[in-house]
Amino acid sequence: MTADLLARRNQALGAGAALFYEAPLHIVRGEGVYLFDAEGRRYVDMYNNVPCVGHANPEVAEAVGRQQATLNVHSRYLHEGIVNLAERLTALHGPQIESVVFSCSGTEANEVAIRMARFATGKRGVVCTDATYHGNSELVGGMTRLGSEQPGRADLATFPSPELYRPVDGNLDEDALCEAYLDRLRTAIARLEANGAGFAALIVCSIFANEGLPDVPVGFMARAAEIARAAGGLVIADEVQAGYCRTGSWWGYEVTGFTPDIVVTGKPMGNGIPLAATAASRALVEGFRAPTRYFNTFASSPLQAAAGMAVLDVIERDDLRGNAARVGGDLKAALQARQPQHDWIGDVRGQGLFIGVEIVRDKASRTPDRDRAVDIANRLMRRGFLTSNAGMLGNVVKIRPPLVFSQANAAAFLEAFDATAAELDA
Amino acid sequence: MTADLLARRNQALGAGAALFYEAPLHIVRGEGVYLFDAEGRRYVDMYNNVPCVGHANPEVAEAVGRQQATLNVHSRYLHEGIVNLAERLTALHGPQIESVVFSCSGTEANEVAIRMARFATGKRGVVCTDATYHGNSELVGGMTRLGSEQPGRADLATFPSPELYRPVDGNLDEDALCEAYLDRLRTAIARLEANGAGFAALIVCSIFANEGLPDVPVGFMARAAEIARAAGGLVIADEVQAGYCRTGSWWGYEVTGFTPDIVVTGKPMGNGIPLAATAASRALVEGFRAPTRYFNTFASSPLQAAAGMAVLDVIERDDLRGNAARVGGDLKAALQARQPQHDWIGDVRGQGLFIGVEIVRDKASRTPDRDRAVDIANRLMRRGFLTSNAGMLGNVVKIRPPLVFSQANAAAFLEAFDATAAELDA
Repeated sequence: MTADLLARRNQALGAGAALFYEAPLHIVRGEGVYLFDAEGRRYVDMYNNVPCVGHANPEVAEAVGRQQATLNVHSRYLHEGIVNLAERLTALHGPQIESVVFSCSGTEANEVAIRMARFATGKRGVVCTDATYHGNSELVGGMTRLGSEQPGRADLATFPSPELYRPVDGNLDEDALCEAYLDRLRTAIARLEANGAGFAALIVCSIFANEGLPDVPVGFMARAAEIARAAGGLVIADEVQAGYCRTGSWWGYEVTGFTPDIVVTGKPMGNGIPLAATAASRALVEGFRAPTRYFNTFASSPLQAAAGMAVLDVIERDDLRGNAARVGGDLKAALQARQPQHDWIGDVRGQGLFIGVEIVRDKASRTPDRDRAVDIANRLMRRGFLTSNAGMLGNVVKIRPPLVFSQANAAAFLEAFDATAAELDA
Repeated sequence: MTADLLARRNQALGAGAALFYEAPLHIVRGEGVYLFDAEGRRYVDMYNNVPCVGHANPEVAEAVGRQQATLNVHSRYLHEGIVNLAERLTALHGPQIESVVFSCSGTEANEVAIRMARFATGKRGVVCTDATYHGNSELVGGMTRLGSEQPGRADLATFPSPELYRPVDGNLDEDALCEAYLDRLRTAIARLEANGAGFAALIVCSIFANEGLPDVPVGFMARAAEIARAAGGLVIADEVQAGYCRTGSWWGYEVTGFTPDIVVTGKPMGNGIPLAATAASRALVEGFRAPTRYFNTFASSPLQAAAGMAVLDVIERDDLRGNAARVGGDLKAALQARQPQHDWIGDVRGQGLFIGVEIVRDKASRTPDRDRAVDIANRLMRRGFLTSNAGMLGNVVKIRPPLVFSQANAAAFLEAFDATAAELDA
């Protein structure tokens, strides 16, 4: 049956539509932190951040069904729902964040952010890291993992993803390393200024998730934001993965310590209902709205509002921020405690319920071992725990469960992890 | 209360977020073809194409609520729902359409279409009309109403929107006029070939909706598609507005008579659930998937599938295609019958439940009268009927109700139209 479905899928969607795992899972149902396949087998979902308040969360499903049965229309009529959501969202940031442009995906929201920065500055150039991902459109997809070579586009420049585990220069102490990365950032800005694009914005995932969730030199982002502003640019925090309590804080920029001018959110906002946002000062938002007359058919709808409010209700009622901090903190500590026992665990890092386990050939060489990371994810899947491999080198086991992940789930996972490790070390 | 909500909205979304009508409507509920404001006043919705099977359609709401309460997850697990939807969608086209890339908005789907054409041809240049709209991203937003001036971008070239009411040359008969527009298309293609971009695709809304829903010279689109293919390009039909039975046919390309290589659909597909698609041959789709490894978090989800299938179920069960053809055809005839009585009705055109009434100073001059079109939409709104003004000159009263619009609704509208016309003629 699975083989038949796979063949139909290859025809209907075209081969190449991505699937997880050596033997793809045929998932038919979800509940909280669990996913169930067509044979009724239960998996602990340790990958999915979109269903942040749990798969099939009843409050969200009820709100969505009720709103769809009441009104779901575009935003050129007045409706209180989306105003309430915008007010609630901006209140979760500092006073510089006042107004919101809603859209349907992180891609669309990052497009809005970059265009907003361009209108505000009159410049076109954007600086991002060399191993980032901000979406799949022509504009933001062009930033995907550009590598150390400078891109062919004059409006983009990259700097190396800052990190302590594989630093650009291993001979430096952390302060000097921070300065080395800042120099690379300055160089990227200077390149845009020199080539005529000018410098409009620095955009970063505030916790460098796709880069591999690195520990970054202390103070790097605060200094980077200063440098960007001094050069006349704006600072865009892509919080699509980092935000919404993922790290145990509301926002990733709290973890890495900077104040963004523009904040982009997406994935978890609607627990699966397409919903994303670009939030900034009212002046920045209006400076974008005036020339573009931006309108997005499915965005700012009563449906998005209902889903978005229900998600925030559950996060706050159940203190999922606190849960992410506690359960994630304990899980990270437990994995770090295992690190000395296995030569293939190079590093354990992350915050809250977003943890990366860097897999290497051996601790001494730190040689990335992507194949082993893939193997571990497949072994854990067979034991009923869903993770994936990620990071710029593909060798980081990515742990990013729904925020309702419990201490009991973590204990069960550690048992499976230990059993898997024993297999590998046998 | 409305004033207070408006002030809050201007802060929360930024002033400039578009609203309809001189006095914006505060809509709180929908049902079928009706919308209700906060005071309980009922309006006949003659504008919205997204809720194609009716506002708050119970079958769609039930399917959406049930799926959200069962499973709503990304597409990297096998799930039968989205395969079923893709198979059903491709079966509604000719044999050249085999596979689908799902996304969340017409913008995203048009991006995919253009990038697909670029990969397939190895060229970058795209030809569109000078008064089109295909979405709001950097790539496709750059095509918005470029006017007769050629755009600054080397990868875009325009040709004049073909039409009979304000033709590029009024001295020609229809065949010669067709040839004149085709010459402009050839010139646009040649411009891309000359400037190094090369010619990748011709993209058109298959009924030129944003251009103002013109009657086009007979045979124009079939010849245009031939010319595009002879030049090595692909033909993209943007069916976001034209498709899904809007015209009384399933697809706009049936109305204007051509065979597209790539079909883009969006707005009505999910009755408000963000859902869009780029459909083409399997080879074209796989030629896009391989280099991009395209993944879209919220797309190809069980939720999109459930909403999309429910919409198709209702359209087929209730023969909404037939309804659009019958009710729309009769309504157009009734409006055309009124045309001789009012000097300000320049033209009545369209197909099915997509009708444009072109408002002019007088029949002799054909001078567009945007102000009067706006005035008519506001007067009709006060009488309980929601339309808008549209078209490249803003002077077309746009009639595009949910597909469940009935003969009784049309009769009531004609009464309101006559009363409005009497006011104007008084």
